[in-house]
Amino acid sequence: MAQKPSIPKGTRDFSPAEMAGRNWIFETIRSVYRSYGYSEIETPSLENLSTLLGKYGDEGDKLLFKVLNSGDAFSGIDYSEYALGGGAYNSNALSLRLSEKGLRYDLTVPFARYVVQHREEITFPFKRFQIQPVWRADRPQKGRYREFYQCDADVIGSSSLLNELELVEIIDKVFRRFGLNVSIRINNRKILTGLAEICGFPDKVVDITVAIDKIDKIGLEKVREEMLERGLTEEAVAVIEPVLLLSGSNAEKIDAIAKLLGGGSPSGIVSEAGLKGVEEVKELFSYIDGASISNEVVLDLSLARGLNYYTGAIFEVKSLDYQIGSISGGGRYDDLTGIFGLPGVSGVGISFGADRIYDVLKALDKFPAGLGETSRLLFANMGSVPYIIPVAEALRERGVPVEIYPDQTKLKKQFDYADRKGIRFLSINGSDEEAAGKVNIKDLENGEQRLFPAGDIDAILEFIGL
Amino acid sequence: MAQKPSIPKGTRDFSPAEMAGRNWIFETIRSVYRSYGYSEIETPSLENLSTLLGKYGDEGDKLLFKVLNSGDAFSGIDYSEYALGGGAYNSNALSLRLSEKGLRYDLTVPFARYVVQHREEITFPFKRFQIQPVWRADRPQKGRYREFYQCDADVIGSSSLLNELELVEIIDKVFRRFGLNVSIRINNRKILTGLAEICGFPDKVVDITVAIDKIDKIGLEKVREEMLERGLTEEAVAVIEPVLLLSGSNAEKIDAIAKLLGGGSPSGIVSEAGLKGVEEVKELFSYIDGASISNEVVLDLSLARGLNYYTGAIFEVKSLDYQIGSISGGGRYDDLTGIFGLPGVSGVGISFGADRIYDVLKALDKFPAGLGETSRLLFANMGSVPYIIPVAEALRERGVPVEIYPDQTKLKKQFDYADRKGIRFLSINGSDEEAAGKVNIKDLENGEQRLFPAGDIDAILEFIGL
Repeated sequence: MAQKPSIPKGTRDFSPAEMAGRNWIFETIRSVYRSYGYSEIETPSLENLSTLLGKYGDEGDKLLFKVLNSGDAFSGIDYSEYALGGGAYNSNALSLRLSEKGLRYDLTVPFARYVVQHREEITFPFKRFQIQPVWRADRPQKGRYREFYQCDADVIGSSSLLNELELVEIIDKVFRRFGLNVSIRINNRKILTGLAEICGFPDKVVDITVAIDKIDKIGLEKVREEMLERGLTEEAVAVIEPVLLLSGSNAEKIDAIAKLLGGGSPSGIVSEAGLKGVEEVKELFSYIDGASISNEVVLDLSLARGLNYYTGAIFEVKSLDYQIGSISGGGRYDDLTGIFGLPGVSGVGISFGADRIYDVLKALDKFPAGLGETSRLLFANMGSVPYIIPVAEALRERGVPVEIYPDQTKLKKQFDYADRKGIRFLSINGSDEEAAGKVNIKDLENGEQRLFPAGDIDAILEFIGL
Repeated sequence: MAQKPSIPKGTRDFSPAEMAGRNWIFETIRSVYRSYGYSEIETPSLENLSTLLGKYGDEGDKLLFKVLNSGDAFSGIDYSEYALGGGAYNSNALSLRLSEKGLRYDLTVPFARYVVQHREEITFPFKRFQIQPVWRADRPQKGRYREFYQCDADVIGSSSLLNELELVEIIDKVFRRFGLNVSIRINNRKILTGLAEICGFPDKVVDITVAIDKIDKIGLEKVREEMLERGLTEEAVAVIEPVLLLSGSNAEKIDAIAKLLGGGSPSGIVSEAGLKGVEEVKELFSYIDGASISNEVVLDLSLARGLNYYTGAIFEVKSLDYQIGSISGGGRYDDLTGIFGLPGVSGVGISFGADRIYDVLKALDKFPAGLGETSRLLFANMGSVPYIIPVAEALRERGVPVEIYPDQTKLKKQFDYADRKGIRFLSINGSDEEAAGKVNIKDLENGEQRLFPAGDIDAILEFIGL
């Protein structure tokens, strides 16, 4: 009758050691968010499907996990209505008939819903952060999970670029605390709009950005080809190409792109939107230059992530020491809450990719030493346990995690327990120690062993180094 | 087109103020668990339905949230096979055909699954804690949610009663830290088995315990009636009744129940199981008497919660200052992992009811002052912002949460922002302060205002009291 236990593909158990690393990541991000005045919220895992559907494109809709209505969900339905013939059914329509709720797909749409629903009680500008799992019915593969945490911060209700600066500072500080060197890439959606305008294809901004976003992966020649395949002319490509070749400092790139968008490109077209984007980038970099950012911040004109809703700044962060793709990103969106009835509210946000950051920290051995330590001291169980209980209790009150081995069993087994759990100090006390009112403690790291009066908690604390 | 946003019934958004309270609860519980050497794990929200089904009784099975298989879940099914006539369908069978996964219902079954699945890498006795949400398709009502957190700790792989002591210590310490007076109730399943034996209805232990568990609510007379309705004879009830009337100290109750189970009841029957239960209770209370427990610990022979799988100690905690039912509970189970292929492993665990504890703390105003504070200091935005950025940054580096108002707007609006967010210190700096290299800070609580050199972070820290 016994089942062989397993978990759904794309999901994970987290062991104590993994939890220690993950909690450190979350706490680091949380404390930096808090230091900038961001407040934490949580939203339910289950949202109404009407909240989620249509927000992530057709592909996203398919990746939503839908939850069956409870009770007698299946009765009163005429299944023949949904039949497509040959045993096939209209799954989309049927699933909506059978489920009203879904698991959240990201933290951004629930946040937009939250802002609209609670707008009367929110103080704007609203700086919130949120660290919770999300679910996607994606095909699982290495590094891609069906359930994973997002760590988002957003400011909503302010269009000041100081918010962008603050998010760059936060990114910089978080990775500094992780001990990771990163490259913070910045672009602006308006510049991408401008590129489409000056090349004469203002309606092809998505095609252009999808193509140029790949330049790091496939190179300039293939990007050219892809733009042509996507319907651009040779002349249009000739306008875009110099932008992709821009190099030099951020200031030099800003000057050059300003000229191209201001009528200096082969087409001679001027893009007002594009010039607005340049102004924004210029202002943001002037703030960045005045702040103490220790990681490199680079204007990357091919950066286009999340084009669906970004309208201003676009951020992306890459590890410089370990190849793994983007480990953080974000941007500004001007009308996220419009769909829920609150139009014209501007917001900007970032998100940290906890799973990838975990992989990088692990690969580069950057987790702090002692992170996974559970207990500092194990009292072996030699039968004289009641005598030990108050000592253990006093140590715990002083902040030391302490265990008493529960079973009176072979010392070898108790020793192995301390060893496998990485407990550094072992205290073995028999009737002699009890009679003398003493506690014997051994440092398993260097073999040093000492005897303390059971009541001398200060001396014990000094010995065990906490 | 705008939707009026809402969330599924029985779910909740948590605002920053609520999160502050909830995080304090979770962190308090977490830190006490850790001080006893418990390690944190997490399991996925989604479990295979085969893991969950049949573990919570028929009623529990119905309360599982089932997740629709992704992709084309509905095709290839002959719906007529499931038709019951009259437009009704066999929902249970169809839902299992359409969904393989469900949301976890508690943390205990996933923990049992985890232990079996990871037994090779676990060091036993395994002390784990887990703080995660669970989902139940229960009818929502006041204080009952469809998504809520559980905070469990369990020790598995040790039958020593020192584990029970430790869990009582943990309960005591957690509620002491919360500033709540509680009554810790203890019983033992073997004593309940014994009662069924000595009254001559060994197979009616569930009926008896369901009835006597209600004594606080319905009184002795109704419990008598219910036992008779459930098939007990007057003679059997006459055996049980004196047990329910036992009073006095724990030691006196232990002596009395030992006599009744040892042949001293009207039936004269001796229950070996019951006497074993008395021995366990006696040993546990001897440990408790030697430990420094500050809340009352009471032997409550009518306590029967979670009878489905408890086999030894049973715990329940009630608030003494606020009527709200059980706020923590647990017990020992001897074969939780058997169903997953690892029989004979004994475990004991407890769980804190975070939602009820939150309600009690709120009602009794026990949350620490300043818990919801976001930022300590707001720099108003008078245009001279770049000058302020390094000051704000230096304060954050010293651990002070600090904000710069992002938009250069009316001072009234910025002041209101500080007021509504409960930010105590406001710094307003114009071109004069900038020219003089000074920072002006006002304590909004008492109106005191002072001017500091922008670089004198120590003086600022002293003034703002952090």
